[in-house]
Amino acid sequence: MGKLTHLNSRGEANMLDVMDKAVTDRSARAESAVSMSAEAFALLVDGSHRKGDALAVARIAGIQAAKKTAELIPLCHPLALTKVEVQFELLPNENRVRMESYCRLAGRTGVEMEALTAAMAAALTIYDMCKAVDPAMCIGPTRLLKKSGGKRGEWRREDANEAGSIRRDE
Amino acid sequence: MGKLTHLNSRGEANMLDVMDKAVTDRSARAESAVSMSAEAFALLVDGSHRKGDALAVARIAGIQAAKKTAELIPLCHPLALTKVEVQFELLPNENRVRMESYCRLAGRTGVEMEALTAAMAAALTIYDMCKAVDPAMCIGPTRLLKKSGGKRGEWRREDANEAGSIRRDE
Amino acid sequence: MGKLTHLNSRGEANMLDVMDKAVTDRSARAESAVSMSAEAFALLVDGSHRKGDALAVARIAGIQAAKKTAELIPLCHPLALTKVEVQFELLPNENRVRMESYCRLAGRTGVEMEALTAAMAAALTIYDMCKAVDPAMCIGPTRLLKKSGGKRGEWRREDANEAGSIRRDE
Amino acid sequence: MGKLTHLNSRGEANMLDVMDKAVTDRSARAESAVSMSAEAFALLVDGSHRKGDALAVARIAGIQAAKKTAELIPLCHPLALTKVEVQFELLPNENRVRMESYCRLAGRTGVEMEALTAAMAAALTIYDMCKAVDPAMCIGPTRLLKKSGGKRGEWRREDANEAGSIRRDE
Amino acid sequence: MGKLTHLNSRGEANMLDVMDKAVTDRSARAESAVSMSAEAFALLVDGSHRKGDALAVARIAGIQAAKKTAELIPLCHPLALTKVEVQFELLPNENRVRMESYCRLAGRTGVEMEALTAAMAAALTIYDMCKAVDPAMCIGPTRLLKKSGGKRGEWRREDANEAGSIRRDE
Amino acid sequence: MGKLTHLNSRGEANMLDVMDKAVTDRSARAESAVSMSAEAFALLVDGSHRKGDALAVARIAGIQAAKKTAELIPLCHPLALTKVEVQFELLPNENRVRMESYCRLAGRTGVEMEALTAAMAAALTIYDMCKAVDPAMCIGPTRLLKKSGGKRGEWRREDANEAGSIRRDE
Repeated sequence: MGKLTHLNSRGEANMLDVMDKAVTDRSARAESAVSMSAEAFALLVDGSHRKGDALAVARIAGIQAAKKTAELIPLCHPLALTKVEVQFELLPNENRVRMESYCRLAGRTGVEMEALTAAMAAALTIYDMCKAVDPAMCIGPTRLLKKSGGKRGEWRREDANEAGSIRRDE
Repeated sequence: MGKLTHLNSRGEANMLDVMDKAVTDRSARAESAVSMSAEAFALLVDGSHRKGDALAVARIAGIQAAKKTAELIPLCHPLALTKVEVQFELLPNENRVRMESYCRLAGRTGVEMEALTAAMAAALTIYDMCKAVDPAMCIGPTRLLKKSGGKRGEWRREDANEAGSIRRDE
Repeated sequence: MGKLTHLNSRGEANMLDVMDKAVTDRSARAESAVSMSAEAFALLVDGSHRKGDALAVARIAGIQAAKKTAELIPLCHPLALTKVEVQFELLPNENRVRMESYCRLAGRTGVEMEALTAAMAAALTIYDMCKAVDPAMCIGPTRLLKKSGGKRGEWRREDANEAGSIRRDE
Repeated sequence: MGKLTHLNSRGEANMLDVMDKAVTDRSARAESAVSMSAEAFALLVDGSHRKGDALAVARIAGIQAAKKTAELIPLCHPLALTKVEVQFELLPNENRVRMESYCRLAGRTGVEMEALTAAMAAALTIYDMCKAVDPAMCIGPTRLLKKSGGKRGEWRREDANEAGSIRRDE
Repeated sequence: MGKLTHLNSRGEANMLDVMDKAVTDRSARAESAVSMSAEAFALLVDGSHRKGDALAVARIAGIQAAKKTAELIPLCHPLALTKVEVQFELLPNENRVRMESYCRLAGRTGVEMEALTAAMAAALTIYDMCKAVDPAMCIGPTRLLKKSGGKRGEWRREDANEAGSIRRDE
Repeated sequence: MGKLTHLNSRGEANMLDVMDKAVTDRSARAESAVSMSAEAFALLVDGSHRKGDALAVARIAGIQAAKKTAELIPLCHPLALTKVEVQFELLPNENRVRMESYCRLAGRTGVEMEALTAAMAAALTIYDMCKAVDPAMCIGPTRLLKKSGGKRGEWRREDANEAGSIRRDE
């Protein structure tokens, strides 16, 4: 059996050496979601469309968090992201808001963690703004949708049938 | 209909004034989880029990993230936490690791966001260490289990039947 | 002649001891402004009213910067702010956007620096979003409008005739 | 009419993709100033010349803030600065201290925001050290003096007649 | 035999609960030192006395690091320091610079780590400025000199015969 | 006589321009140590081997601190490290734990400060976990063992006879 890449033969966790990896164009897309009560969802919609900053705040939180990934995830390398984007999709039939993040850079290692961290922070910020109305809100699933670049090339989630519903600026 | 507490009548988001709230003993417990392939789960178990630092790294990530909550969530107040704890539960039948966080402070506002942020960062760190083996891992549900303190008193998730399975030091 | 409060008798700068100051309700209000070309101002208005996030982004930048004041200003004490607010006023006759910040806490030292830092960061963020159109934009005057709390009580800028034009939620 | 570069067609603010921009030698120079009472200015001079650390503290604050620009300005890219410099000019006839910052890097995007942030933080630090004597001090104008590098080449402020009075080490 | 306070019965490290500790006046004093070649020492003296910012830079680094202690040391609680001071002593007979830090707060836990972190960061900054001349410089001993406050009361290093040689402003 | 590289002819400290330095493969190795009482050492050994997270926590602290070097040391450049590793050696005959750090990157300036900062933070974290048992612990010597890359090529500490005793993964 193999072992986790971040652990050496003695089980010690260190930041891997990526010096010998090629600098390539790498990108990743991730998603998260917040499911809430009908009342909380109605207030979030009201605070987002034409009337308020709710989604803008969550978007900025996601973008800023992506830049902090190496501070938050101990074994992540500091990366100079060239692009971070966070988009939202309000799903009224499910009282759910879905967020999709996209990160890109020219670097030696992938940006999956940055994309996931952006989605996570955007979701947590939505939770924060709605929690007085509904503390039982549920965050997730938080997961990678797609990554490209690097030695392994492109990976795409097979069951990501809802990915793509968010209009993109790419 | 009401409105989101963080938005004023013009829809502008600001950090709420908590000056007039009482300084009380407040705590919160939250959970998240990472579901993965059998192979990734086996490696994580191998890298955690007696042989490696995997869960210790994720625990520290969660604790450090709790202290950074006000940097990550734009409208959160800076809080002087008196306690942060992150515990893990390895669920072999489901190839899933569950994490539970607990935060406490004497303050004017609750620590739900700190607990959720700790759980989320611990989950992301598990994802980071296992992602070379299984990029399709799924994080969540991330949610509040319990909160106490403040004007509203205690809140407890009704469907939290698995909460409690983690031994606590309280 | 006296000396600067932060320098000791040998001219060395240290963080002052505020232990013996009383914990009181302290607040401060500050302002800044960005003057720009007619074209940049028109785009900013277009990107702010009903159509875009421009001012929301600058508001969040100001709020987040207030929480980082002790990291930015070396001799500032870390403070647990209970409130941060940033408001904007679009002045079409002058092609100028004015921002007003308000900070509050229960603490041993004043929040003037937090209010000024919030106003400055909001102004810089406006500059950032408009700089492709007009790099010659001018930021300022950045200044304190009012402070209250502490031994010296209230101070109010005498020439602040425009202060008050921004609707407040206090 | 155009639109702000950071907003997409739906008015949403994201961090722009700079992947396709060339890595070039980019630099920027910015200025700010603090105008104060004669008493405050005399104390600042006294705390700076031969006797104290006042300007050194403000210089370090400016340098450290330049490195934090992407944390402070939400849509700024993280940049690996190769040079940051902050210089001061004491103007006794006007009871004013002027600061000039200079930033440089080899990168895909300009360093105007880094230079402006450095000047801002240096000015705020001067304010902090003198505020007990004169809370009415006025900061500004804070503005770009010059930038070079990138597709648009060099830009220089036309009315910057005082720029150049500070001796430089370039 | 006992166990380390930060580890629970399963060896897991968490941030201890200090909620039940009393808020008292706590302070700590620590020291570090940098031993260097005669040439490096002469340049440091030259860059410190009347002619340069060397020690001011190191002092600010120490003060700023004290405020970051909870970010650096994973199990430290975030603390609202009321005072941070760093002093230097140039020891020409030994080509050594000694630094002494002092931290104070009203809180539930001691400030030893803040004082040690301040001393260490000041020492590293001296190293940084002199390393082109002498990379072999040696930092240390870094150690606590004194602490007071809390349940255990005052502790004082017995062999600290050189402590006290630095003039203090207390 | 020369002068410190970071100070200009007026003694002012700025961040040096490294634009014209070549991007090369640079690495550095540093060490620190914590000497303690027999009781503290026994508890640390007990909390590290098979039973606890003590060294894992200190390792993560060191890795995270290396990434924060430019925030802590004012004149350091922000660097995109490709590798950070921290190893420990328990020395029972001396009741001492020694830590060795290793940093690497492809960049314009060396990583000595990153390696020293990692070693320092790991040592401070050991101190933090053991301080309830022995506040008199002594940290140091903290020093560079080896550096390579850049114009000057390799440097190696001459008296580093104990370096090498830690098994490495290089």
